Amino acid sequence: MHDSIEYSTLTSVKYSFASRRLAATALCAGALLLGSTTALAWDGLVEKQHFEMDEYTTVSGATIAPVRIGWEAYGTLNEAKDNVILVTHFFSGTSHAAGRYAEDDAAPGYWDAIIGPGKPLDTDEYYIISSDTLVNLNAHDPNVTTTGPASINPETDEPWGLDFPLVTIRDFVEVQKALLESQGIEQLHAVIGPSMGALQAYEWASAYPDRVERLIPVIGGGQSDPWLLATLSAWAAPIRIDANWNDGDYYDGEPPLDGLREALKLVTLNANHWQWANETFDRSWADEDADPTRDIHARYAIEQTLDDIAAARAEIADANHLLYLVKANQAFVTGHGDSLEAGLADIDAPTLILYSENDLVFAPEGVRDTADMIGADGTSVELVTLDGNRGHLDGVVGIDQAGDRIRAFLAE
Amino acid sequence: MHDSIEYSTLTSVKYSFASRRLAATALCAGALLLGSTTALAWDGLVEKQHFEMDEYTTVSGATIAPVRIGWEAYGTLNEAKDNVILVTHFFSGTSHAAGRYAEDDAAPGYWDAIIGPGKPLDTDEYYIISSDTLVNLNAHDPNVTTTGPASINPETDEPWGLDFPLVTIRDFVEVQKALLESQGIEQLHAVIGPSMGALQAYEWASAYPDRVERLIPVIGGGQSDPWLLATLSAWAAPIRIDANWNDGDYYDGEPPLDGLREALKLVTLNANHWQWANETFDRSWADEDADPTRDIHARYAIEQTLDDIAAARAEIADANHLLYLVKANQAFVTGHGDSLEAGLADIDAPTLILYSENDLVFAPEGVRDTADMIGADGTSVELVTLDGNRGHLDGVVGIDQAGDRIRAFLAE
Repeated sequence: MHDSIEYSTLTSVKYSFASRRLAATALCAGALLLGSTTALAWDGLVEKQHFEMDEYTTVSGATIAPVRIGWEAYGTLNEAKDNVILVTHFFSGTSHAAGRYAEDDAAPGYWDAIIGPGKPLDTDEYYIISSDTLVNLNAHDPNVTTTGPASINPETDEPWGLDFPLVTIRDFVEVQKALLESQGIEQLHAVIGPSMGALQAYEWASAYPDRVERLIPVIGGGQSDPWLLATLSAWAAPIRIDANWNDGDYYDGEPPLDGLREALKLVTLNANHWQWANETFDRSWADEDADPTRDIHARYAIEQTLDDIAAARAEIADANHLLYLVKANQAFVTGHGDSLEAGLADIDAPTLILYSENDLVFAPEGVRDTADMIGADGTSVELVTLDGNRGHLDGVVGIDQAGDRIRAFLAE
Repeated sequence: MHDSIEYSTLTSVKYSFASRRLAATALCAGALLLGSTTALAWDGLVEKQHFEMDEYTTVSGATIAPVRIGWEAYGTLNEAKDNVILVTHFFSGTSHAAGRYAEDDAAPGYWDAIIGPGKPLDTDEYYIISSDTLVNLNAHDPNVTTTGPASINPETDEPWGLDFPLVTIRDFVEVQKALLESQGIEQLHAVIGPSMGALQAYEWASAYPDRVERLIPVIGGGQSDPWLLATLSAWAAPIRIDANWNDGDYYDGEPPLDGLREALKLVTLNANHWQWANETFDRSWADEDADPTRDIHARYAIEQTLDDIAAARAEIADANHLLYLVKANQAFVTGHGDSLEAGLADIDAPTLILYSENDLVFAPEGVRDTADMIGADGTSVELVTLDGNRGHLDGVVGIDQAGDRIRAFLAE
């Protein structure tokens, strides 16, 4: 993955990290003993915060008033405000990239493996900020704040429903930019994100090349290719079939939960890979008393597991938000201009792209083409493959394997 | 793909084929001039025929009475009845493997590229027979005869609906066996079929090793692995969500066409590959006046094409039959016994497995494992990869590339 010069660099970085981590741990322990709340190292607890704009005009010219989004940060913004890393989230994700909201949270944020004191996105060094996108999928998660079809339209005092304007990845970026500017942040040490987060990262670097110093797109290409257009279409379909969807007007009745669950099941399945399915499951039945070869309603264990995951996710998700996310992702071509080549040529930031050759969502060929187009004018681009049996998801659950390379890239 | 000895064999076979084809063409032309209907070479026209059993008891012990299935044959059964090749069809397929029902049919059967006078499955030499399975998907196609939930249950004079018993790939084989026996056929020169047809082929060779002389499974493994269990589950889901499905009771009302269409769209998408999508389509809109980034109901061209294919297929398909096919495929483990290894060990026929490394339905790893298990006791097995950009479907639309190998294998 790395040549020998890079490897030796990584080794020295690792060494200094180890020293620093020991120091930070010592500080933490000291702080705890003293009952202090001013430990230098981030304690891993996160407070969800909110940002509001009185109104926002989308790239397509529609006005949304107000816009509220949630955000969280790890580490401390320095005085020069030049230590900022923006983390952009994936399709079904939220701002919760690291840490825990409460000590007893079952799991930390999705990229906790690489964000924290002494970790590759080192909270001792960087101010790492992440925000919920517009039309965030998890609109009914108490830890998510977003604006979309499920939000109240102040003009009608009713949820927007399908009257909410379609938004794009560029709109996500514009709202993030306003959030950053509200904190006086003009420059980004890096933008990094997986999947739909990669799309936001490409768009940031293309739209604002003077503000983005480093670009790390993970498991995402420079556009939605036809395969992804079709895959996203398949994700939307179960919701549209569900009679409760009612053309998006369901907020005073039963939501289209069956359709939403099935959509989320497809997301889970497509984001994985047959290697994962076949190494994780066997042909066991979900219920040892219900033989799926004898009963049309009985299921296998893998079906049950995927259904259970989907059901849990559907509890806090909104069906219209999923449809809007599908549209935003389908619409994506870096730069949103006449050509993908031109949009990617606008990127000047040195770029580290992490991807999986087994990705069934973003075709690896498209990711490699993206790298070629960014590099065509001499911009530095490095492609690093991720291993694992998860396919697309190796960029989320297997990100730790790229930690050393990310750490070094951030220091370059 | 082949060693040099095999290659030289193929060359000589090709030569004799060319000579025979010329002779056959001359005979055909002569027959046409004379108005004769007794040309030796098959003229490419197919007559659909029907086979009925007064009753059939499934492997699980349920009785279906009567059972009717359609069948067709290409070539002539010889007196010894030892020139029979059985072709078993795929999930959404029918008995129509080759030829045309009428001169002006838009397209011939799905494997016409390898079935016909002088072709690898040479109708001048073999009697090639294919039948519609039980619970065939295309229950409303006038050229299909099948028995399943959409059939009338004589006991009630109503369609069976979900009262129809679940059936398995082994049941498909048993009904085919009865069909063959009705023609006095006890031995099969070969069994060949793609995808679900491969499952039937494995089952034939495992259940009746003394009757199957050669086995050619195409794009299919020896069992439904967990990945396939989940994929099939996803195909079933849109139908179950459609309110018109009504727990399978829709034959006196509106059928669940929206769900059926979406199920068939998933089948088409999963049976293909991102290479095909991205080489065949671009990001064009379905309607140049309906911008999919501005209108939540507007689509891209690839969505429209997949929807159109699905809509056409849904016209002649039955939703319950699809659910029953899902169950039959999910239930499949060669031999339907205690272990896959034992079921595959029962296969004695020399085996030629054709598969694609880009197959997203049957994981290539599972196909290779299947070959290993068949060969573990010394049975001859050859694995041949199929190229192309269609993934799974390269075994249907790209079968001609393996024609020479199939021809040689049938002559071995």
